Amino acid sequence: MRSHGCGDLRNDAIGEAVQLGGWVDRRRDHGGVIFIDLRDRSGTVQITVDPDLAPAAFAVAERLRNETVLRVEGKVRARPAASLNERLATGAIEVLAAGITVLNEVRGNLPFPVSVHDEENTREELRLRHRYLDLRRERMGRNLRLRHATVKAARGYLEGEGFIEVETPVLTRSTPEGARDYLVPSRVCGGEWFALPQSPQLFKQLLMVGGIERYYQLARCFRDEDLRADRQPEFTQLDMEMSFMDQEEILALNEGLIAAIWKQVKGIELPRPFPRLTWQEAMARYGTDRPDTRYGMELTDASDIVRDMGFKVFSGAVAAGGSVKCIAVAGGNEAVSNVRIKPGGDVFSEAQKAGAGGLAFIRVRAGGEIDTIGAIKDNLTAEMKAELLERTGATEGTLLLFGAGDTATVHKALDRVRQYLARELGLVPAERDNDQWNFLWVVDFPMFEFNAGENRLEALHHPFCAPNAGDLGSDPAAWAGTLPTARAQAYDLVLNGLELGGGSLRIHDSALQRQVLQTIGLPLEEAERQFGFLMEALDMGAPPHGGIAFGMDRLVMLLAGEESIRDTIAFPKTQQARCLMTQAPADVAPKQLEELHVASTWSDEEG
Amino acid sequence: MRSHGCGDLRNDAIGEAVQLGGWVDRRRDHGGVIFIDLRDRSGTVQITVDPDLAPAAFAVAERLRNETVLRVEGKVRARPAASLNERLATGAIEVLAAGITVLNEVRGNLPFPVSVHDEENTREELRLRHRYLDLRRERMGRNLRLRHATVKAARGYLEGEGFIEVETPVLTRSTPEGARDYLVPSRVCGGEWFALPQSPQLFKQLLMVGGIERYYQLARCFRDEDLRADRQPEFTQLDMEMSFMDQEEILALNEGLIAAIWKQVKGIELPRPFPRLTWQEAMARYGTDRPDTRYGMELTDASDIVRDMGFKVFSGAVAAGGSVKCIAVAGGNEAVSNVRIKPGGDVFSEAQKAGAGGLAFIRVRAGGEIDTIGAIKDNLTAEMKAELLERTGATEGTLLLFGAGDTATVHKALDRVRQYLARELGLVPAERDNDQWNFLWVVDFPMFEFNAGENRLEALHHPFCAPNAGDLGSDPAAWAGTLPTARAQAYDLVLNGLELGGGSLRIHDSALQRQVLQTIGLPLEEAERQFGFLMEALDMGAPPHGGIAFGMDRLVMLLAGEESIRDTIAFPKTQQARCLMTQAPADVAPKQLEELHVASTWSDEEG
Repeated sequence: MRSHGCGDLRNDAIGEAVQLGGWVDRRRDHGGVIFIDLRDRSGTVQITVDPDLAPAAFAVAERLRNETVLRVEGKVRARPAASLNERLATGAIEVLAAGITVLNEVRGNLPFPVSVHDEENTREELRLRHRYLDLRRERMGRNLRLRHATVKAARGYLEGEGFIEVETPVLTRSTPEGARDYLVPSRVCGGEWFALPQSPQLFKQLLMVGGIERYYQLARCFRDEDLRADRQPEFTQLDMEMSFMDQEEILALNEGLIAAIWKQVKGIELPRPFPRLTWQEAMARYGTDRPDTRYGMELTDASDIVRDMGFKVFSGAVAAGGSVKCIAVAGGNEAVSNVRIKPGGDVFSEAQKAGAGGLAFIRVRAGGEIDTIGAIKDNLTAEMKAELLERTGATEGTLLLFGAGDTATVHKALDRVRQYLARELGLVPAERDNDQWNFLWVVDFPMFEFNAGENRLEALHHPFCAPNAGDLGSDPAAWAGTLPTARAQAYDLVLNGLELGGGSLRIHDSALQRQVLQTIGLPLEEAERQFGFLMEALDMGAPPHGGIAFGMDRLVMLLAGEESIRDTIAFPKTQQARCLMTQAPADVAPKQLEELHVASTWSDEEG
Repeated sequence: MRSHGCGDLRNDAIGEAVQLGGWVDRRRDHGGVIFIDLRDRSGTVQITVDPDLAPAAFAVAERLRNETVLRVEGKVRARPAASLNERLATGAIEVLAAGITVLNEVRGNLPFPVSVHDEENTREELRLRHRYLDLRRERMGRNLRLRHATVKAARGYLEGEGFIEVETPVLTRSTPEGARDYLVPSRVCGGEWFALPQSPQLFKQLLMVGGIERYYQLARCFRDEDLRADRQPEFTQLDMEMSFMDQEEILALNEGLIAAIWKQVKGIELPRPFPRLTWQEAMARYGTDRPDTRYGMELTDASDIVRDMGFKVFSGAVAAGGSVKCIAVAGGNEAVSNVRIKPGGDVFSEAQKAGAGGLAFIRVRAGGEIDTIGAIKDNLTAEMKAELLERTGATEGTLLLFGAGDTATVHKALDRVRQYLARELGLVPAERDNDQWNFLWVVDFPMFEFNAGENRLEALHHPFCAPNAGDLGSDPAAWAGTLPTARAQAYDLVLNGLELGGGSLRIHDSALQRQVLQTIGLPLEEAERQFGFLMEALDMGAPPHGGIAFGMDRLVMLLAGEESIRDTIAFPKTQQARCLMTQAPADVAPKQLEELHVASTWSDEEG
């Protein structure tokens, strides 16, 4: 039906008869001659319709609306010198129309323009409702092609490393540990339910027991969570698992993977090896386990300096087992006014949103003088001040911002303030303009964290991570004691402050697996009921293995310079987990529910 | 952790120190020296453990059970001439062990042996329950690698043709037309439900409206059907859609795809173009729209010959608007006894299973004499007999088997008998030994078939197939009349009697789409409620487009020479849609159902 892509025509096609298909990007009537910019996914080319040479085509061209679908036959010719267009790849030629066929009309009004010439800010709701039009626009088409290129680069690298893709089930079993599952009633087994997988975790481990050795999958995963800005109910992860490899080998292989993607998709050679931080160090220096290292403003611990100070907010925090930490904002005296860092100010509010009571501040003036509230100034000895300035590297003009309280809250507050100020002060570019790729491995995560609400330990990643062998010790009888504080052989890859992926070595010993499940509060019988098949598999020749998973939506978002993962997904859902185009979810016929032996209890609750 | 794959070692490694990891395939104690066959996914190598050279390794080796996971360090050396093993890729060398580390023990008894040396018929139920062990066996590992190679070949070809992979949603809207949907309750929108897609049909069409032009996806699809032997509740299709291409272009491109797969996976050059049959012709000659053309025994229509015959079973069938057809089994007099083709016989029963009352037969003897039942012999004139023998090509020794009745039943019965006899008579090899690849396009399907139960037309493929433009006519006012009997621009690819895939050109005109939905009995308002977004999209510049989908599970099954798609899937479900390994589906916590605003009505029905 077509001989060429519109955007592929160049000088070497001059003289050729061509058949094109595409959309009317725009139409210009230049007194007697009509020019049509015909667009397909390869680009745009100018069609020239001369009423004397092609009267029938001209009659069609006269009444064309934008986005009409055409087939055009014609001959390629050089443009006159005066109308060369250097900004257009096809700008040296045009197609003189011999015939034009309308393949499909546009009826009614378009909800928003498609052509880049009319680009405008369109409400996302409207874009999602008419996603088929939004996808036809240059930006979304480019994003989907970039997503494809990313996946292709990943596949190519992994297949070169001997990985094979294996598909794991979508209809599987609910595992209560973790986020909320999407459930699917079984018609055949009335009263029983499938769950959609939050990840293929157990299946990929069982593939390792099955001798596959190197597995990957672009795996659709599902979490029924209240959606934050950057989450989707279904998402895609590049999921991997490998046997007979230790952590160093796994990290090196994954650096190769990421480097191959950046090289092929962005043409960028990433320096390797990637930097590393232990989880402890990341928390201490940035207050978070996914620090953005494109800028400084690291956290300084001042607890020991102020522990005996008369300012009770500081000394009290330390006495209660908490911390006093600060970040030094170079030039902050100039850049950040007092209004912003005092109660009601935007910077102060960021600390509050993280759960902190507020922020304290010290402004460093000429000659080491300081400005701050009286309660601090009056209680800060010269020695304390000198130590503080030295440790933070503060000089004239520096603004010090302090958090005080329990350490976790101090970390959250200062992390949030640090990120906020980096954007406010222009230390990081807009996503679209970013050209700095600060990869970072965070390693040595704790195995568990304490869930105060449920008064029990829970797995920081998931209960299949292997503990550090040294922390655990070799005596199984002692594991109940050594496990709770052991570090995990777990690792996250962070890019510019976002978690790109994470993984771990896995437990391949059934006794240790049972111990971990008990440590998170699962009674032995319950552990066997839920995970008995895993423990049984571990007893039948499970090799040492580990893996990782990368969030593809976010990875593509970063590569595309987008701010939302929705702009990397063809048909995303809203934050209310709804598809505005198809209006899913929706009512179903009562007969469908009857057949599935289920009923909605929603109207009852409403009534 | 490893320097080499076990199966990769050859003479060129002699003298090298190597580190291997794998499973004990078997262990032989040759009076003083122990030999271990160490197996990983690359193959097997012989480890020789000499008590004098490596006493610690020998102590470990003495108590090794099969399937124990080992790390072995040692040196590669040539085997003595007497113990060369030419059947083994590594049979010229062995690894002299310096150290052996047990990475994981086997506890308890293996439910079945893994090593090919002990291969046995294991009940499928046991294989599925311990799938991780089954996958470690040679056959399943090979099948999964072949599946990967198939997908890789398909991706490579399609990407070379400009296709990009786009992911479509798994949580989507229920479309009642078609098979039964799996449903997922929405927590956020209480009382509403998502459905899992039976195919990405509407999304891929919307991608075409969105200007993607060439889309593919390895798409997971779901059908909640009562499972026949060769079905799974979730299955994978290689799903494609393309714009600005006509049927000839689409078929040619797909022949290229299939040829690329056979070339890369099997090393076979398929002759092209593939043969074609219209649906009419396929039904007439084979009684089915997916004929196995590896053997003859085509159907002959004898209706006109026997229409006035005194044998009422024949003439009555024709008078009632039905048919009398037969297949000629060359050598059938010898090969198929009378017991088998008379009531109670196995061949007769096949016809009955297809809904026929039975089979009639004629045996052709020397000199054109015939044996048959009296009622036929007495009523068959010499002219009828002569015409019958000539038309069927029957000669001495031929068995003619007749079906008489309504044409659809005659077709079903003779198709079934034909396939049955082909297997019984050895006209087709066992799946594992097949080396004949009879591809066939079946084209020109009808748009609709009559559903007598619901007293309405229903779409033969789905209601988005475009009708043949000539059959439809150009006057929209006449479509209500021309549509019901129009042929569709639809095509199936058949291989050796199995449907490999199917597709069609799609409707890209909203008025025609509305007319088709009305033709299958959907009132206009209901059509708008369910498919309004599609009709709206068709009005905004939808290009002409079409597509196809191949069943990957079945494609891989045929390539692998397997008889069941379960042997091509890592973690399949049983015919009761259950996973024997994880025991999904399963009970869930009452709290989970509460949060989803649903209740099971199963216990009510039981009580």
